[in-house]
Amino acid sequence: MRFAARVEVRLRPGIADPEGATIERALPALGFEGVHDVRAGRSFRFEVDAADEQEARRRAGEIAHRLLANPVIEDSVLELEPAGPGEPD
Amino acid sequence: MRFAARVEVRLRPGIADPEGATIERALPALGFEGVHDVRAGRSFRFEVDAADEQEARRRAGEIAHRLLANPVIEDSVLELEPAGPGEPD
Repeated sequence: MRFAARVEVRLRPGIADPEGATIERALPALGFEGVHDVRAGRSFRFEVDAADEQEARRRAGEIAHRLLANPVIEDSVLELEPAGPGEPD
Repeated sequence: MRFAARVEVRLRPGIADPEGATIERALPALGFEGVHDVRAGRSFRFEVDAADEQEARRRAGEIAHRLLANPVIEDSVLELEPAGPGEPD
């Protein structure tokens, strides 16, 4: 079976986020007031072949934690769903 | 009211993704077989003050489309939910 994985990698709470801070500072001048706590991160999507959802989740989780995130400063969040054939992109 | 927004910015289908391709090529050597279609993107989280969900969605969508994504090569996906006070980070 094939599963579609979506991984969000984000800075751990308390880690400085200069990109998010820069965006937040720029927003009022661009006409957007009342926006707070901007945090920038990375996202990844990929497909995993696995016998069942449990195995797919284990392998995608390992990829997320060991390869996509830097565990010193980042968390990763994994979402997984069956990838139907002919699914819209 | 305050709403928590999550924006995923990803390359449009058909746009070359060297970062995703590099990750995909590296995975078998790292022990991960059967992983396909790796696509790299960016994610942003922020909070918006707005009178109601409709206004929050409109403003967060504008921020996503006009400022966070490059519409020539990227799509953005917005998810929005009420940000309860004292919500875990």
